[in-house]
Order: sequence, then C-alpha cells, then structure tokens
Amino acid sequence: MHDTAITARWQRAQACIGHGVDTIDTPLLVIDLDAMERNLARMAAFASEHGVRLRPHAKMHKSAELARLQMSHGAVGVCVQKTDEALALAHAGVRDIYISNEVIAPAKLLRLAQAVRDLPTKFSIAVDSLLGVTRLAQALQTAGVDTPASLDVLVEIDVGHGRCGVAPGAPAVALVQAISAHPVLRFAGLQAYHGGAQHHRTAAGRAEAMAAATNAVEATRDALKTAGFHVPLVTGAGTGTFLLEAGSGVWGELQVGSYLFMDADYAGNEATPLAPVFEHALFVKCQVMSLNAAHAVCDAGHKSHAIDSGMPSVWFPSGLSYASGGDEHGVLRAQGGHPLPELGEVVWLVPGHCDPTVNLHDFMVGVRGGLAAGVVERVIRVDTRGCLG
Amino acid sequence: MHDTAITARWQRAQACIGHGVDTIDTPLLVIDLDAMERNLARMAAFASEHGVRLRPHAKMHKSAELARLQMSHGAVGVCVQKTDEALALAHAGVRDIYISNEVIAPAKLLRLAQAVRDLPTKFSIAVDSLLGVTRLAQALQTAGVDTPASLDVLVEIDVGHGRCGVAPGAPAVALVQAISAHPVLRFAGLQAYHGGAQHHRTAAGRAEAMAAATNAVEATRDALKTAGFHVPLVTGAGTGTFLLEAGSGVWGELQVGSYLFMDADYAGNEATPLAPVFEHALFVKCQVMSLNAAHAVCDAGHKSHAIDSGMPSVWFPSGLSYASGGDEHGVLRAQGGHPLPELGEVVWLVPGHCDPTVNLHDFMVGVRGGLAAGVVERVIRVDTRGCLG
Repeated sequence: MHDTAITARWQRAQACIGHGVDTIDTPLLVIDLDAMERNLARMAAFASEHGVRLRPHAKMHKSAELARLQMSHGAVGVCVQKTDEALALAHAGVRDIYISNEVIAPAKLLRLAQAVRDLPTKFSIAVDSLLGVTRLAQALQTAGVDTPASLDVLVEIDVGHGRCGVAPGAPAVALVQAISAHPVLRFAGLQAYHGGAQHHRTAAGRAEAMAAATNAVEATRDALKTAGFHVPLVTGAGTGTFLLEAGSGVWGELQVGSYLFMDADYAGNEATPLAPVFEHALFVKCQVMSLNAAHAVCDAGHKSHAIDSGMPSVWFPSGLSYASGGDEHGVLRAQGGHPLPELGEVVWLVPGHCDPTVNLHDFMVGVRGGLAAGVVERVIRVDTRGCLG
Repeated sequence: MHDTAITARWQRAQACIGHGVDTIDTPLLVIDLDAMERNLARMAAFASEHGVRLRPHAKMHKSAELARLQMSHGAVGVCVQKTDEALALAHAGVRDIYISNEVIAPAKLLRLAQAVRDLPTKFSIAVDSLLGVTRLAQALQTAGVDTPASLDVLVEIDVGHGRCGVAPGAPAVALVQAISAHPVLRFAGLQAYHGGAQHHRTAAGRAEAMAAATNAVEATRDALKTAGFHVPLVTGAGTGTFLLEAGSGVWGELQVGSYLFMDADYAGNEATPLAPVFEHALFVKCQVMSLNAAHAVCDAGHKSHAIDSGMPSVWFPSGLSYASGGDEHGVLRAQGGHPLPELGEVVWLVPGHCDPTVNLHDFMVGVRGGLAAGVVERVIRVDTRGCLG
C-alpha cells in the first residue's frame, strides 16, 4: 500500500484488511479477487495449450504484486511502455521486463543502462529508428556496460496500427543490421502490435486486420532471412485479438493486458468462438451524494475513472445509466422503470478502460467473496502510477 | 516535491532547480511562473476593484503552495470538492477551506469533524439534503465538537447546471431551517454555481444563462427573507463567467480556478469585453520518440494530460496538430506546409482541461524566464492528487 504521500494518513483508513466490503470508502478501485484469479488461470491455460509465451502488459495493472502473480502462473515476464515503469517494477522485484515502446531521450536511456548494469532484472526494449539504436548503445557504453548481448532489442514494425514502428520489410532489415553492429545489443525479434485491430467490434473485422498484420510480419521475416538474420521471436497481441496471434503460427508471445481485469470497452466486442471468456474484475465503488427527482449524483467522476473509451457502465444496481458530471461527479438516471438509488446508496461501476483508470489510483482494494458481502483481503499498490518518463 | 513514492528515486532526476528548461525530462507538467503570476495579479486586481471576495478553486492546481500564494494575494481562502482534498491542504497549512460540494458518507464527515476539532483551519461545506445536514451535525457531535457555529454551512441551489443542489426557493428554505436547528452549524450563505454557463462559447450565451441564474438566486434570497433568514453570502462563479457574477450585485465571492493556468478549453471561449485576459501558464513538455513520413509520435498521451475537454493543442513548434495515440503517445501531423519535428525534438502542449491534467502528476515544474530559455525555479508538489474521498 502506498503509505508515503501526505494524503496517506487518511487514505489508510479507506480500506481495512479483514473488514467487509461495506466499510470501503468511496470512490475506490476494487478488485474482485475471485474473478481476477479465474481470468489469470484461463489465460495461463490458453497460452500453455497453444504453446505460446505469455508476457502480460503491466501498463494495465501497474502493480509489481500482480506482475509477480502472473509470472508465478506461467508468464515469462511483463511488458511496460515507459522507462520509469520498468525501473519501478524492477526495484519492486520483477525480474523480466520488456519496454515494448521506443525511448529516444538520452537521460532515460542512461537510467535504463544503469539498471541493466546494477539490477538482477532482465530488460529488453523496442526500437524503430537508427537514432534509437545509436543512443541505446551510447547509453550502455556511458554506464560501462560492455558484456556482449547485455540488452535484448526488438524491432517494431507497423503492422497496421499506424503509430510507431518502421514499415515492414527493408526498413526493418536496416535496423537489425544497425543492432548487429553493436555487440552489447542482441537482436531478439520483432515487435508487431496492432492496437486498432483489438477494438474492431466484429470478429470478422478483427480477423481481417490481423490477416494483413500476419502478412506484414511474414514479409519482414522473409526479408530478414534473405539478409542473413534469424528472427528469434515475434511478440505482440492484446486481449481483443490474442486468439488470432496465437493461431497465426507467427507470433510466439502474447502481450495481453486487459484480460486480468476486463473493462467496459473490451466487453463491447463480439465474442470470438472458442475464446476464453474473461469476467469483469475491476470496479469503482462509489455512492450517491446528491439526489433530486430527475437524477442521482454519485461521487465518482473522471478523477476516479478514465473516459478515453467512454463512460463507465453501471454494474449494480440495475437499470441505471451513467453520464459525465465532471471530475468529481457522475449523473445517474433510471431506465426501464427502475427506481433511482437512495442518497448514500452504494453504486458499482465498470470502468470504460482499465489501464488509465488504474493510473488515477494509488492502490486497489482486493476483495474476496464477491462485491455484495465479501471481505477486504489485500490492498494492492499501484507501483507505476504516474511513471511517465 | 513529492519525494516519498518508490518512483521518486528517478523522478527526482527529472527536473533540477537552477538548471535550464532543456534539462527537464519528458513528459512533465511545466508552469511558466511569469505568466502564472501575471494571471494571479490580474484576478486579484479585478476582485479588489469590484469589491468581491476571491476564493479560488484549489481543485484546479491541487497545491498548498499555490493556495497560500493566492491567499497572500488577497484571496480569503480556497475551495475544494472533496473531504480529503480539504484535509490534505489543511495539513499543509492552508487556513481557510470551503468544500463546495456535498458529502454524505458518515466516515468522511467524521474525518472532517475531527479536523474541525483539531486543526487551526477554518472549514466550511455545502449541503443539498436534509440527510446531509443531519449527518453533518451527528459527525460533529461524535467528534465532540459542540461550540456554537463551529462549522459554516452553505446551501447549494441548482441555478441551471443540472447536477447537485436543491431547486431555488422553498426547498432551500427547508434546508436553512434544518441547519438552524443545530447550533453547532452556522448558515453561511448560498452556493450557486453554473458550470454549464462557463463553457458557452459566445458571450451572449453565457450572459443569458447567468441572467437566469441570477433570477434563481434572487428568488431564493427573497424566500429566505420572508422566512426570516438573512443570506450572508452568495458564492460561485468560474473563469468563464466571473465578470457576470461580479457585476450581478448578488454574488459576493468568486470561486474561479482555471484563470491561474488557463487551458485550451477556456481559451476557446469568445472573449468578454473589458474582462481581464489570462495567459496560458501550464504546459506539458514532451518530445518526439518515433517518426515516419506521415507523422511524428510524441511521448505524451492521456496519462500525461486529461482529454475530457478534448485533446491538447500544440503550443510550439507551430503548424502541428495533436491526435490521440493512446495512454502514452500523441500523433503529431504537420499542417499548412510546416515540417514535422525531428526525432527527439521538444514539443510543448497546452492541456485541454487543467484540473484533471494536474491530477495525473505528482509535481509541476515552475520555470522562470520563459519556456525557450528559462530556468527551473521551483518544483511545486501536487498535494491533493488522487484525493478522491
């Protein structure tokens, strides 16, 4: 538990281990541990059955405790997006961390190089530019790291997401050649993530996008083979498409994140036949703090949950819609003849997008035995909250 | 500076006092102190000239240091929205704090009552329900507070915002009667805030909404007078409409917040003639970390800035648009023949909405001498970041 900020004195009183769910203050982030552990087991079983490595994205839960839990259930390590996320988790004991994103700032690369030198964690990182490769090698040199293959480097190719990554084929070959020129670096494979495909609502839309992505990876692998380079691993995928990557024969590692908690956005996707089903395990507990004839107002606004994938949905009680009331408020309206909740009544929300929602909180309250009558079992620290650099 | 979280070890290296702006890590929140102090002086002068009290909303900057700065420039105190914001600022030495929002949870009200009992800070709070009044009085009794008029209570009326507050007129009278039944409470006035009016783009739209709000306040004041109650104060207003409240003859106190930093959203309002002009003082410093022929990608996404009022605008360099690239990325495209920035180049963003943007950060870097060649003068802690309860 985050016990250091000036706020901690009263935050400590917000959730007490061993006490009932009813004693949890609002608005707070609550994990249904039973549901989360079922999600954990389902994804671990899937990866094992399909012979693919599991490297969950810790940008989702931001917690060393949950990263270690995933690794104790078969994950080879975790991904992060930022240097400082990697450092926070490494200092909290996570032993295999992949920065699945580009880092170009020399100051950040030096922090990473010092961690490669000093910590027992195995680090790896993505690149998509010659400057990135050069600066990475320089940072390791500055930190005095010169053992061959001290850092695994993956080349990101753009397989349709349209954000980072070089174009498939020749540009990736040029980068692998550059990596090979620095013995301290080891070319460890291709980063191929299609974030856009995750959120196609239909299974057919996701399959079409991923077929094109698979072609792009195969073309790059062929071009590298022609140039004399073997691709040890293709890594990528997310909760919306991992079944496709796992069945492609190309991807060897899945970077799924949201499956552990799920969110309202992924729940909006049409289910893929035969895919494991994941349950909502992350909730915002809030309560009604103002009430009139037209609506109730709860104490959770967009300081409690992210809204980049839309407003949260109301999990309980039934028959309520949630509309934005600003940073600190949500406006609840009754639907289908249901009554409005009473003043002070508890309302459970499912966040639209789990990753940035977790980033708003210092801790998550782990509940055993369900939301209705369960007990606080653990308070899970959000170790990488606010790790932007 | 927030020096307590596990992350602080590397965050400390992200901005060093006395060093140049160029050494500030990315993405970080940077305050142009010169611009901020001009905004501070302009609003203080306005309030003084118009004979209205200034009680800036600290939900915007979330900083005890800036709250004290505002109070040293004529503000009578600050507002907050949450109990735990009030407690954090009170413990950090802010001596007059108004919770301009309803609190219904007994546990929170007890925390507040204990602070009323133990701290030198003068607290006040809004109510909009009989239950709220009853629970407030109970909490003070539980905490052993029984001196008459220990806590100022303001009755919130809905003057058009459509969120919290009772209807103007008779419902407000009932609440004031309930407050009067508890000698430990003191009826201190009306909370009348029209958030919706702030964001009408045209000056005429804002004036129309505020004329209706003024009528609602006057009707309530008349109803209270008939019932034998004097209204000591009407408090409300924001950066979008404060000129109207100040000139209404009804409002006696302004709760402006954004004026200190400004944001892209308020800057989109048509200016009101004769209103003081406020400058952008809050920026996200970020940098390009991926580049291709079509676009550049910067390292600031919606983990760096809030998007409830739209994407940030690009302050510098010119001719760039910002599109969402997710939690950690922004996609920059060139406009009007301008070039794309280079890999590693610094980009300055103006957040769409300052309040929830500040909430994403542990500290703000105060720069003296401008963004181009200034020096880090102060690192300002975000004391109430994550104070949700």
